[in-house]
Amino acid sequence: MITQAVIMAGGLGSRLGARTKEMPKGFLEIGGMPIVEQSVRKLIACGIEDIIIGTGHCKEYYEELAKKYPCIKLAHNKDYADTSSMGTLAVCVPLVKESALILESDLLYDSIGLNVLINEMRKDVILSSGKTGSGDEVYLQVDGDCNLVKHSKKKEDLESIYSELVGITKLTRSTLDLMVKYMNDHKADQPKMEYEVAMSAISSSCHKIGVRKVEYYTWCEIDDENHLKRAVEQIYPHILENESIRGIRREVLLNPGPATTTDSVKYAQVQADICPRENEFGDIMGWISKELSLFVGAPGRVETVLFGGSGTAGDEAMISSCVPQDGKLLIVDNGAYGKRMAKMAKIYGIDYDTFVSDGIHRIDVEALKKAIVDGKYTHMAIVYHETTTGILNPVPEICRFCHEHNVVTIVDAVSAFAAVPIDMDRDCIDFMSSTSNKNIQGMAGLAFVFCRKEALESIKDYPMRNYYLNIYDQHHYFIKNNQMRFTPPVQTAYALRQAILETKIETIEGRYARYTACWKVLVEAVKRIGLKMPVPESEHSHLIVTIMDPESPKYNFNDLHDFAREHGFTIYPGKLSDAPTFRIANIGDIRPEEMREFTVLLEQYMKTI
Amino acid sequence: MITQAVIMAGGLGSRLGARTKEMPKGFLEIGGMPIVEQSVRKLIACGIEDIIIGTGHCKEYYEELAKKYPCIKLAHNKDYADTSSMGTLAVCVPLVKESALILESDLLYDSIGLNVLINEMRKDVILSSGKTGSGDEVYLQVDGDCNLVKHSKKKEDLESIYSELVGITKLTRSTLDLMVKYMNDHKADQPKMEYEVAMSAISSSCHKIGVRKVEYYTWCEIDDENHLKRAVEQIYPHILENESIRGIRREVLLNPGPATTTDSVKYAQVQADICPRENEFGDIMGWISKELSLFVGAPGRVETVLFGGSGTAGDEAMISSCVPQDGKLLIVDNGAYGKRMAKMAKIYGIDYDTFVSDGIHRIDVEALKKAIVDGKYTHMAIVYHETTTGILNPVPEICRFCHEHNVVTIVDAVSAFAAVPIDMDRDCIDFMSSTSNKNIQGMAGLAFVFCRKEALESIKDYPMRNYYLNIYDQHHYFIKNNQMRFTPPVQTAYALRQAILETKIETIEGRYARYTACWKVLVEAVKRIGLKMPVPESEHSHLIVTIMDPESPKYNFNDLHDFAREHGFTIYPGKLSDAPTFRIANIGDIRPEEMREFTVLLEQYMKTI
Repeated sequence: MITQAVIMAGGLGSRLGARTKEMPKGFLEIGGMPIVEQSVRKLIACGIEDIIIGTGHCKEYYEELAKKYPCIKLAHNKDYADTSSMGTLAVCVPLVKESALILESDLLYDSIGLNVLINEMRKDVILSSGKTGSGDEVYLQVDGDCNLVKHSKKKEDLESIYSELVGITKLTRSTLDLMVKYMNDHKADQPKMEYEVAMSAISSSCHKIGVRKVEYYTWCEIDDENHLKRAVEQIYPHILENESIRGIRREVLLNPGPATTTDSVKYAQVQADICPRENEFGDIMGWISKELSLFVGAPGRVETVLFGGSGTAGDEAMISSCVPQDGKLLIVDNGAYGKRMAKMAKIYGIDYDTFVSDGIHRIDVEALKKAIVDGKYTHMAIVYHETTTGILNPVPEICRFCHEHNVVTIVDAVSAFAAVPIDMDRDCIDFMSSTSNKNIQGMAGLAFVFCRKEALESIKDYPMRNYYLNIYDQHHYFIKNNQMRFTPPVQTAYALRQAILETKIETIEGRYARYTACWKVLVEAVKRIGLKMPVPESEHSHLIVTIMDPESPKYNFNDLHDFAREHGFTIYPGKLSDAPTFRIANIGDIRPEEMREFTVLLEQYMKTI
Repeated sequence: MITQAVIMAGGLGSRLGARTKEMPKGFLEIGGMPIVEQSVRKLIACGIEDIIIGTGHCKEYYEELAKKYPCIKLAHNKDYADTSSMGTLAVCVPLVKESALILESDLLYDSIGLNVLINEMRKDVILSSGKTGSGDEVYLQVDGDCNLVKHSKKKEDLESIYSELVGITKLTRSTLDLMVKYMNDHKADQPKMEYEVAMSAISSSCHKIGVRKVEYYTWCEIDDENHLKRAVEQIYPHILENESIRGIRREVLLNPGPATTTDSVKYAQVQADICPRENEFGDIMGWISKELSLFVGAPGRVETVLFGGSGTAGDEAMISSCVPQDGKLLIVDNGAYGKRMAKMAKIYGIDYDTFVSDGIHRIDVEALKKAIVDGKYTHMAIVYHETTTGILNPVPEICRFCHEHNVVTIVDAVSAFAAVPIDMDRDCIDFMSSTSNKNIQGMAGLAFVFCRKEALESIKDYPMRNYYLNIYDQHHYFIKNNQMRFTPPVQTAYALRQAILETKIETIEGRYARYTACWKVLVEAVKRIGLKMPVPESEHSHLIVTIMDPESPKYNFNDLHDFAREHGFTIYPGKLSDAPTFRIANIGDIRPEEMREFTVLLEQYMKTI
């Protein structure tokens, strides 16, 4: 799997005159965004974790960009004015692990080109196109196996012309090392070397570099004013269309998960087939576990154990794996999910009591503390965010008290994780479940149980109450073999990987702020329309709002549902047993303007009843 | 979800002269395949279940095509010569349920156009393109919301030209009904009506039909010799390239599942987001269950219960759900998967014995029968295809005997289902597990348990030994609510749906024949190379072959693995405890020529040691 890219962005861009005198070429804006930022986004969207940018001229622009995209790593080429693109590439090479996409910074391109290289069987391969007529072509000559023989800007230098260099290439570290060596060997006679010179040089000798031609590829480079005009008027609209026809119809899910996802998460599922027992895939699962752990704890403090299954599978894994034979469990029940955990405990014959509270008011924490002190409980289980009503339970306070009384804490954070900032050590949470399809904004199919390191070790010898959902066995097998015990949902894992990359860019705090912005839009509209909310605003999770059905006899949830669905919004019925309600969640890739659009529909509907 | 398409194929194609005098236009071959067959394949690849073809001229060609693709339904327009395309469309309309893609039969087009329409928010929408210069354009005029106002072949008829009609349209049944009514109302003055006339007519009145323009869409219609020349020389190569750059690197998995999948199964995962508790999704899950059931039983005889999880989850669902408190289970153990079921029985405290046999020789069926008669067992569990070695157990014979002795039969058919033809009634199988990622050729993430109807009812009151994997509860909830109990892996379900569509076209018998052809290539090569196989050929499943490691001290499985992987083939280590082996499976979308390619690599490697 290709996880790194290098953008060579050291150049002076002198042919663009005043435009790029005090700005790198990549910061030319087309369609309202610098072209290099468009490139960064396309790279992230196709699963690139690290974007190494080799800087030179006006590097402060890139320093700003790196603040916005934490996946960017900068490498500065001090001699940029005297070494050209190969010099800039050379400063980036030490950061490349196995293989990377290598891009010029002044490209405008259809993102499909990245997929073409990623899906190429060959490890070293240049993307090239048919005739562009751009006036600045780099022509390529190839051998019978489509390997690079020679390049030139002059047609007459070549025996035959196969295609034109685009400026996007997939290269292995070993090839890059050969190119750097070639540059160093020729410093005296060729101080200013373009990277394609080094590629040609090493390809024509021992190390073949393939050329992949896409005859009708939509792209351009921007070196002068003519290029810029052509880019704006012809190429950019064409690229936009190409990318949009691959887009997926946007449905805004206002149900409490599975959540609305980005198109890049959807497309991340489409990968070359792989046997999940391959080390390559084990490394991906390992990366996922590690990155998930880092969302909820300091490095090395939390182990994330993955299961193929839903959030309920994660809860059942905890209830069945984390309580010893002689343990006694207190389950806080203030909604459907607390009840569900109690049902599980009953099925497994675990000694348990429930602490019942309604889902509308804040739990009586003092009464709960008293029960914990009095009850000789060894374990306490609670739902962080009870989606029955959208109430956020005061989990850190309760769990801290539990730890003070040597009670192990089990938390269903299925719809809290990746929205509510959590630190399992700080918040005294021993075991915590969640799933790939809620706030992390991946696809359904993977459950995870986060375990504080010591807590995980403590359950090692607990009785196995089932096989598939046993936490310790699942963890132990993976650590030992770099494979899951049982076939994981492979494509869901790829989507989760992409969702993690995107969460790291937004950050959990940023996500909660966006969710909160959506919630504000919703709550203001609900109040304006005159609808009632049973849960006091102060207890709202900002993730789900329960709304009382309007009193009009003409109101019908299905009508409202169907009306919203016609317009691309999916809403969800309520779950309170004693009051007729419906629920609006804002979990997922949802923007405040979309929530506003929904509230307009809600208002429209309410006027009809 | 759009599941139907209509191809209007009644026309005479008279402008193509002798070429189409005795053949419908759609059977013009380009790139070695009739263009209408290319269209049929593109429709299937994007999830169309029913392709309704309206025939006229030379309908026998379509009758032949329908034999090859059982998803084709034919509707004949007797008056094709006198009614034109609207007459042909009209005979198809009664077969349309909710909505369909409507296509002309003489189109050559980039499949992305289908995705564009499928992903359109609007329910009635025409695909159109920028200027083609084809010489036979149908121009479209639209209103400010991009709805069709008027069409004409003459520019001067229109106030403004927005785009050109392609001949692919998405229409609802109600719109189609309006068009048919319009045709009938105008039969006297317009006996020969093109379908676009009816579209324009009804769109300009009460019922708006949208127009979606793809400026750079690659397509053509073939009406005359010039069109044909342009299609062959320019359009077809362009379409091939467009489709190939969206293709995914082919990795041939020779491990025993997850299996190699088609690109269309991979892309089926990429769908608009949906809440799985929506009825629309419930219907998809219901369709999946029903179609899976039909692979292993007569209509109404088998219920398929789906779980989010791996094949092991399916096995654990059976072991934990299907044996009553006072039951006694005999588990046939001739490999890792039989052992695994025994482990589960032990964990759940089920009274069980094992009948142990090595994985190399055929089970001693007489001894097993004796154990069944003697042992007072109520239940017997066996693995159909033991992937440990690739031995196929004589399940029908054993299960029939069990039924004769009132013993309930539980079969792990994880890697047998959808390759080995099974009829649960005929073969006396009560419960049977499998998974989405083996021979059915879908993605990993869904387990299924097939249940004979009466068997399922019999477990209704059995004790719940777990919650997530309880078969009866899972089934009952779905039947009652048209929803899964817990969030299913939504995208895996879409992929499974596509895999089922493709399996129905290949048929299970056809698939087993293809697998057997691959197996023959492999076994012949293995013998030629001089490698040994521990399992006698007569017991081979034709799905997996276990091969003894060569005796050369230079042999190293990892070297062979890495060499094969470099060339796009993934192989798998052996699992026999007492002999060093490796395994080659041919489960999945693998063709005999690919197996041949692998055997060449195998031979090459063996020469190096």
